[in-house]
Amino acid sequence: MGAIKVLTLVMVVGFLASSSTQADEGMWLLNAPPIQTLKDSYGFEPTPTWLEHVQKSAVRFNSGGSGSFVSADGLIITNHHVGQDDLQKLSNAKNNYVRDGFRAKTRAEEIHCVDLELNVLMSIEDVTARVNAAVKPKAKPPEAFAARRAIKAEIEKESLDKTGLRSNVVTLYQGAQYHLYRYKKYTDVRLVFAPEQQVAFFGGDPDNFEFPRYSLDFCLFRAYENGQPAKVDHHLKWSASGAAEDELVFAVGHPGSTSRLFTLAELTDARDRRIPKALEWLKAQEVSMLSYCARSTENARRGHDLLFSYQNARKAYDGELAGLLDPRVFERKRAEETRLKKLAADKKELSAARKAWDKIDAAQTLISQASPRYNLFERYADRSSTLMQVARSLYRSAAEKAKPSGQRLREYRDTNRASFELNLFSEEPIYDDLEQVRLESYLTSLAKEFGVDDVVVQKALSGKSPRDRAAELVAGTKIKAVAVRKQLYDADVAALDKAAGSDPLLGLVRDLDAAARAARKIIEEQSEVKEQAQAKISRVRYAVDGTRAYPDATFTLRLAFGTIKGYVENGVRVPPFTTIEGLYWRSTIHEGRAPFELPARWSARKNKVKLSTPMNLVSTCDIIGGNSGSPTINRAGEFVGIIFDGNIQSLVADFAYDDTQARAVSVDARVIIESLRNVYDAGELADELLGKK
Amino acid sequence: MGAIKVLTLVMVVGFLASSSTQADEGMWLLNAPPIQTLKDSYGFEPTPTWLEHVQKSAVRFNSGGSGSFVSADGLIITNHHVGQDDLQKLSNAKNNYVRDGFRAKTRAEEIHCVDLELNVLMSIEDVTARVNAAVKPKAKPPEAFAARRAIKAEIEKESLDKTGLRSNVVTLYQGAQYHLYRYKKYTDVRLVFAPEQQVAFFGGDPDNFEFPRYSLDFCLFRAYENGQPAKVDHHLKWSASGAAEDELVFAVGHPGSTSRLFTLAELTDARDRRIPKALEWLKAQEVSMLSYCARSTENARRGHDLLFSYQNARKAYDGELAGLLDPRVFERKRAEETRLKKLAADKKELSAARKAWDKIDAAQTLISQASPRYNLFERYADRSSTLMQVARSLYRSAAEKAKPSGQRLREYRDTNRASFELNLFSEEPIYDDLEQVRLESYLTSLAKEFGVDDVVVQKALSGKSPRDRAAELVAGTKIKAVAVRKQLYDADVAALDKAAGSDPLLGLVRDLDAAARAARKIIEEQSEVKEQAQAKISRVRYAVDGTRAYPDATFTLRLAFGTIKGYVENGVRVPPFTTIEGLYWRSTIHEGRAPFELPARWSARKNKVKLSTPMNLVSTCDIIGGNSGSPTINRAGEFVGIIFDGNIQSLVADFAYDDTQARAVSVDARVIIESLRNVYDAGELADELLGKK
Repeated sequence: MGAIKVLTLVMVVGFLASSSTQADEGMWLLNAPPIQTLKDSYGFEPTPTWLEHVQKSAVRFNSGGSGSFVSADGLIITNHHVGQDDLQKLSNAKNNYVRDGFRAKTRAEEIHCVDLELNVLMSIEDVTARVNAAVKPKAKPPEAFAARRAIKAEIEKESLDKTGLRSNVVTLYQGAQYHLYRYKKYTDVRLVFAPEQQVAFFGGDPDNFEFPRYSLDFCLFRAYENGQPAKVDHHLKWSASGAAEDELVFAVGHPGSTSRLFTLAELTDARDRRIPKALEWLKAQEVSMLSYCARSTENARRGHDLLFSYQNARKAYDGELAGLLDPRVFERKRAEETRLKKLAADKKELSAARKAWDKIDAAQTLISQASPRYNLFERYADRSSTLMQVARSLYRSAAEKAKPSGQRLREYRDTNRASFELNLFSEEPIYDDLEQVRLESYLTSLAKEFGVDDVVVQKALSGKSPRDRAAELVAGTKIKAVAVRKQLYDADVAALDKAAGSDPLLGLVRDLDAAARAARKIIEEQSEVKEQAQAKISRVRYAVDGTRAYPDATFTLRLAFGTIKGYVENGVRVPPFTTIEGLYWRSTIHEGRAPFELPARWSARKNKVKLSTPMNLVSTCDIIGGNSGSPTINRAGEFVGIIFDGNIQSLVADFAYDDTQARAVSVDARVIIESLRNVYDAGELADELLGKK
Repeated sequence: MGAIKVLTLVMVVGFLASSSTQADEGMWLLNAPPIQTLKDSYGFEPTPTWLEHVQKSAVRFNSGGSGSFVSADGLIITNHHVGQDDLQKLSNAKNNYVRDGFRAKTRAEEIHCVDLELNVLMSIEDVTARVNAAVKPKAKPPEAFAARRAIKAEIEKESLDKTGLRSNVVTLYQGAQYHLYRYKKYTDVRLVFAPEQQVAFFGGDPDNFEFPRYSLDFCLFRAYENGQPAKVDHHLKWSASGAAEDELVFAVGHPGSTSRLFTLAELTDARDRRIPKALEWLKAQEVSMLSYCARSTENARRGHDLLFSYQNARKAYDGELAGLLDPRVFERKRAEETRLKKLAADKKELSAARKAWDKIDAAQTLISQASPRYNLFERYADRSSTLMQVARSLYRSAAEKAKPSGQRLREYRDTNRASFELNLFSEEPIYDDLEQVRLESYLTSLAKEFGVDDVVVQKALSGKSPRDRAAELVAGTKIKAVAVRKQLYDADVAALDKAAGSDPLLGLVRDLDAAARAARKIIEEQSEVKEQAQAKISRVRYAVDGTRAYPDATFTLRLAFGTIKGYVENGVRVPPFTTIEGLYWRSTIHEGRAPFELPARWSARKNKVKLSTPMNLVSTCDIIGGNSGSPTINRAGEFVGIIFDGNIQSLVADFAYDDTQARAVSVDARVIIESLRNVYDAGELADELLGKK
């Protein structure tokens, strides 16, 4: 996954291949690591100190990815495609940092990112008992949902007030456990170095999710505190010698979302409705962005990040759908479900789970019915225009702030306020022409999905064609100005309703609001029903499989482990490492045509770089979207590489972890040092990484 | 319409803007030309000799486009994008004629096209009375459909036997008239000249349907008879001086399909169901082809023609949908329908039409319901894989040939046999990897649309994933070999059923056949219902609007007329001509990046060509997909240009002809001569075009 970055668009679907986990399977909690398995399989026992060190060296990019501290002066490494969002926001028609890369020659040249927030996990606390105690035993789903929402908000608020740390209650094991995660936040983050996008994403869409691979997918940021480089207590030491074939390695990062514990009904829904509908939407967006980008070089620059997101998500979903259309996947899931149902039927102590599958089935049906309206009026509305997202945030803030924090929509709670405001008041550039194309596409989607006679669609279009209406919305809104946003953010409901009367975009979000909230309510309540039923099924699984289980991914910190290992494809052995020489070779056989062209600097330096330097490597670590930027570390806790992708076979592994061919792909630590020194003349950064400063 | 070539995928939707035609509106029958209008508006009266000359100079490309004879030795000009299908079939990994162009230096070097058939219209005969007499007065739709099918086949067969000419009964005015069209056929057609695709389709997808424009979208073929260049009685004289602003011009060609006489119900269906569904399918195909093509230069070559078709159709449909989502379009249609309904209600002699709208509405509902199965099992099945199309043709031939010709599916009738066999036994290259990608995509579409539990889908997938099944189908079929096809084509139903037992692809088309035929039957019968009801409405229209009406396009020869005229866009005047200088300028401002790069030959010859030579021009001629390659001619019947596109505003004109901004775009005759002489060193072809030989 050229982006195993969590695309806000991607929700991955998966399941356990069998009743027990496979050799290197698992995205393990840092407070419940697979110590016994590591001892048994690899003779390695991570100490509490080792675990704390890797935990506090790991960094979460709230824009959707992972990273780690790699110097005592707050230097952070992540993927280029994780940092791309920030590179894009810092770029303009003159300086295109996405395409051309960036290098701060001194710390004074490091550039402050527009709206980037980083989180470092400081502690985990089990709050399951307190959450469950807040829900009355016979509570109906809406009450249970409200009660749980309120107690979570209360716990988060209490923790924030007490510690000053970002505090989030995380639902694990489908609701069988709730843990409180506390994060140290960094919001003064500066760009230090990025290579050219041509070499960071070498091979583009065709090579995305493929191996052998030749990508220099990394970039460097630095965390600042009080205007100075942050002095961090934990950072990963850099391994100058790198890792070798068959070596045990770990990936510490933030897998975004898996659904490996899905029931058959949910998996069927994903295959027959959810993924096909998502693909339909994604492909329409991709084609629209391709058209926009093809019109000029400047358009291509403006639309680049969006286009990449759509293409990446499309390729991931296409792969997932291909996996789900393999009948064997469903056979295994059916067998697993039969096994669990039989256990629930046979054992009295597990009887609470007997109705769980039917409940999930019924809830899934309601979710499926509400989904078109939820997607179009709620989810895609936010993702189809930066301006519309801002407008909605402003419009809803007034109403939400009037409620107690625990009763608000999640993103408007007090505990999320700082992150929310960072986004809302972002100075990221907004391009009228791009917004117009995106809004026209969104409005056309509304008309396609519900027909122009639908009451909400009629309000949205306001008697105009999507094209005319989009032009009117962009031309007429005042909220492009951050000052106007700040003013409206301080206003009350009446003032916002008044503003919606004159600002067409605020008017649009107002007109969509009731329908969007109604659909979201169904989705959230029925998800709660599913979660509670899933918790009962989870108990059946634990009763027989014991503690050899890990929860589905939730964009929280996890530890994965595996071996650096090649594989056999079509009868041919694919070795685990590629080299810089391979990069040049691949460009040559494609005659240097896009997306296989090399940046001028790389062509010019061919004689200066050591061609045998390892470039990318594969391991059996169990990773998924969100793991992008995760450090690959060795037993000594040293940095040996950085995860940036999974191969095409690992897309099937979203549903069934399997180490036959599925592999995580990393940039090797050694190519990073080699290129900093001999391609980019940035020896001072190489020195800092190697701790020579 | 970088392809106003009829894409088999595109069915355009349209309607009359008001009760009477606009100034230059109309796609007129050659046997009912708008003589009075031309006299009144332009003081020009085409003589029967003039009409016969342009009719017999015009050529239909059965692959989906138009062209014309331009020398006494059978030289034919059409668009590069019309000839592209043939260029692609003649190309291989070594010779890429699509990309690099082609030039036969002598007649001996002219290359025989794989499966191209050209038609020249020799005569038109009104057979309405005979067709109607064959239908019993109270016949139900299925009987009426069968009777009409039988009599048409009988008329065609009789004509073929008598004249030896290709004979087709054409339904005009939605069934108010039936005309017998007789064509002289040419099947020995050879490629003479094609420019590089970079200059023929300069600006690619971004410039497609745009103006100002700089495309050299032409190529040359030659018709042969008995192994010698055909000596033709009619060809267009070339105008060396070209045409001027405000000059009257004509476009003589084969507009593919319009639906300007649609009722409100049909137009609503097009907007809310048909076009959105078509776009969904097209965008999925486009993304799939883009992925395939991006993988290597050779893939890009193999997939080029398909990718172009999908992109072109997508852009056309997106434009049509944008037009239909303009509420004004529906307001006008509603007003027109109210007017006609009132006339039918008020006048006793028009009372037969009173129930027509309800009948169309009901039929449209049945068509909409059957469409998903019709599209997936019938239409897209043929368009999703060359091999599957061949397999179906073979499998169905056996069953169809056992019936009387008049009862067969249209494409299997005796009168179509020669064209059918030309396609079936085509030696066009078939690429296993491309076929596999396309089949996987098709099978995935089946599963997405109907679910894997659907009985037909289960048969199609045969217990495998789409990927595995596609691989099995391509690897296992024998029909790649033309010899095998010929053998099976001579076999009977029992033999085909036996072959379907061992050849997986024949097995697939067998398994789809019943469902495909059932859905097609509904579509055809209900279309007949609509046609008959439309004929009644047509009579109301004629009763009040007189003969100032032309039938919807049917890929038969039509005469359009208009003026060479610029327009105003966003307050800026767009002049009607561009020049070669503009081509260089546009490439320069895009830094020569794709799709704005120039072929090496054009860069090298910049100092040799006359930069002020007119390149493209716009006129108000009423054209649509299928008109690609139509000669643009002057009053003297001389060739002054060749239609290759319509601007973006003309997409709205698919529903409402309007000459405010909508324009047909032609390559100017002068740039053709200039480039043949001074870029391609093909002076002998320039001389032949100018009649100097």
